[in-house]
Amino acid sequence: MKFSDRISNIKPSFIREILKASANPDIISFAGGLPNKDYFPCQALSDITSTLMQNEAQDLLQYGQSEGEYQLRSLISQRYHDLHQMKVPVDNILITNGSQQAFDLIGKTLINEGDGIVIEAPAYLGAIQALMMYQPEFLPVPIDSNGLDIKALKQAMMANPKIVYSVPNFQNPTGFSYSVENRESIVGLVRDQSCLIIEDDPYGDIRFNNEHPPSFYQYLPEQTILLGSFSKIISPGLRVGWMVAPPAVMEKLLIAKQASDLHTSRLSQRIIAEYIAAGHLPGHIKTLCEVYGKRCRGMGEILDDLFGDKIERSYPQGGMFMWVKFPPSELSRLNKIKPIDTMALFNKSYENGVAFVPGQPFYIETANQPNTNNSLRLNYSNGSMEQLKTGLDRLHDTFKLF
Amino acid sequence: MKFSDRISNIKPSFIREILKASANPDIISFAGGLPNKDYFPCQALSDITSTLMQNEAQDLLQYGQSEGEYQLRSLISQRYHDLHQMKVPVDNILITNGSQQAFDLIGKTLINEGDGIVIEAPAYLGAIQALMMYQPEFLPVPIDSNGLDIKALKQAMMANPKIVYSVPNFQNPTGFSYSVENRESIVGLVRDQSCLIIEDDPYGDIRFNNEHPPSFYQYLPEQTILLGSFSKIISPGLRVGWMVAPPAVMEKLLIAKQASDLHTSRLSQRIIAEYIAAGHLPGHIKTLCEVYGKRCRGMGEILDDLFGDKIERSYPQGGMFMWVKFPPSELSRLNKIKPIDTMALFNKSYENGVAFVPGQPFYIETANQPNTNNSLRLNYSNGSMEQLKTGLDRLHDTFKLF
Repeated sequence: MKFSDRISNIKPSFIREILKASANPDIISFAGGLPNKDYFPCQALSDITSTLMQNEAQDLLQYGQSEGEYQLRSLISQRYHDLHQMKVPVDNILITNGSQQAFDLIGKTLINEGDGIVIEAPAYLGAIQALMMYQPEFLPVPIDSNGLDIKALKQAMMANPKIVYSVPNFQNPTGFSYSVENRESIVGLVRDQSCLIIEDDPYGDIRFNNEHPPSFYQYLPEQTILLGSFSKIISPGLRVGWMVAPPAVMEKLLIAKQASDLHTSRLSQRIIAEYIAAGHLPGHIKTLCEVYGKRCRGMGEILDDLFGDKIERSYPQGGMFMWVKFPPSELSRLNKIKPIDTMALFNKSYENGVAFVPGQPFYIETANQPNTNNSLRLNYSNGSMEQLKTGLDRLHDTFKLF
Repeated sequence: MKFSDRISNIKPSFIREILKASANPDIISFAGGLPNKDYFPCQALSDITSTLMQNEAQDLLQYGQSEGEYQLRSLISQRYHDLHQMKVPVDNILITNGSQQAFDLIGKTLINEGDGIVIEAPAYLGAIQALMMYQPEFLPVPIDSNGLDIKALKQAMMANPKIVYSVPNFQNPTGFSYSVENRESIVGLVRDQSCLIIEDDPYGDIRFNNEHPPSFYQYLPEQTILLGSFSKIISPGLRVGWMVAPPAVMEKLLIAKQASDLHTSRLSQRIIAEYIAAGHLPGHIKTLCEVYGKRCRGMGEILDDLFGDKIERSYPQGGMFMWVKFPPSELSRLNKIKPIDTMALFNKSYENGVAFVPGQPFYIETANQPNTNNSLRLNYSNGSMEQLKTGLDRLHDTFKLF
């Protein structure tokens, strides 16, 4: 059987193997990106679901609109207004099966083979996997704790990319956020170009401080596709996210959504809408921010205690991930310390009962590849504080073997 | 904004407009393909959902497996065995968001631009729309009450198509089923070719007689991708279907599913699994077959009474659709009767309060196009028997104006 070129290009995914392996109950896993199930609002969602099915089953079980349930789209629009004074017309909102489907619809609607996509280096793997299906040319631009490398972005923009893909708040895998200045520099480079910003914001609500830097959508509503998700703030299993796009793009996205699966589960949509309408969401998000913030700080302190200056790490102000770097191999040679290859570290760590994702898979392979084998991603949202401590001890014990 | 070639090729859909227009409550609509909501098993699904959310919310709300819930896949495998003595390994089953997503995953996994897809003429619109995104070359092969035109299929096979797409039971839009002999001729032509049969079977359970012609999967398990759906037998709003594929294809489909939306709503999957596990499905399907069978026969009798030999129609033994043809324009000229253009008939009918789908959109446009503007599709599953009678009277009143 001859498969399509697009799927033949996809190599067996190391990360899929890692995530599968991490399901082993003897392993403490910092590998996945799971929200903490102990904090799912089970009782409220259970009550809402029972009421919905008692009162509206006949309607909910029938086919629905491809754009999604009007009530849910309207509540999303209202939230943008209440939280960020953003005007987002309901007609510009499309409901998707989590943010993951948004990547697929963007690829379907916008990408021809060879079209340029500026992407963060390192970048979110789910976006890479979904967009890769449309055979673009990825243009990786490094990020650091300040945001995108503007000089590298300028260079990449000379290739006339169709899309700049960005996770400006608490990026996956690094936990970095873009500064206001960095956002404005990016806006300056993209404005008036025939180029869209994909602003992927699944973590924007999981925020450990009170800073709210503006969204790209606020600068460039006509050039921004803004993605949101209920996976991190309510439940991933229900598979509900959304995208905001200018009307001309929305018209095409809607055709793509209809062709892809007609519409998202109406029950899932209505459960989430009723949860928001009942006013539960702000209090629930506050709890998540406190819990995840505590874990993030806890992880940072333990890492600093154990590893000291043998690592560099990010200082996330939100989201679910911390990025850890060992000295790059050149520097290790210079200082006569043994370089750490995080792929090798992973294999040994796994034997010692702890898992993480090595940094390398988050990078698009390019000719002048930077050193990508000295970093790793740690998730801190999942598991208990005790597991977090034990897991990091195991990681450090393994590190000492190198 | 420059869109992708694949989406730019999609013309504004006439049928989307028709379906939107048919939502008008003054219109009796034979246009959609909706199951009858009066027969949704609301109470059973409501009870099951409440119990699930009370007992398993914490698990159900978390991320799940891309292949779908094991229990549901296992129940699907068991049903194939119990109903058709078919051996379908659980590992060969992938859960999708209705059959619609299966078309998209097939396109992603198998179709390069220009690859040949044999498709029925007329064909199911949802399949055309989804597969069109992957820019294949469609090779239309006419169908009649016996199945595919074997001579035309032989001709089409000379172009080395990658896929033969077929709805062998109670086809949409015609209601035709393939005879056993026809199926065997098709199998003979496809066997040993580098070609897969897509056997799309959403209506196979909605059967008004006791004939069960064999599935293509039973002849050619290694060359068949078999699609199923709970949309017509339980609920479309929950968005749950499945696909059966050989292991090598399944491996790629799973990557495509993961890239497309990670997985299908776990709550939707578990509701359907528990409904089947509780033993409700056979009795429910029996009811649907009785109800839809009665409507189908009723529609046929009324049409025969009203139109007599001014139309030809199909005699569906299952499914949800009846196909009606007026004499082709050449024949009309010969017999000095005015030819009926069903697009024009639609516009006038709509003014008179009844909607249907004209036949033309179900045909792929080709150079040597047959006459496609003298047919129409009628759905009989939706609405009451009284509405059915009134709607057909309105259709006949409109017809008399031509």
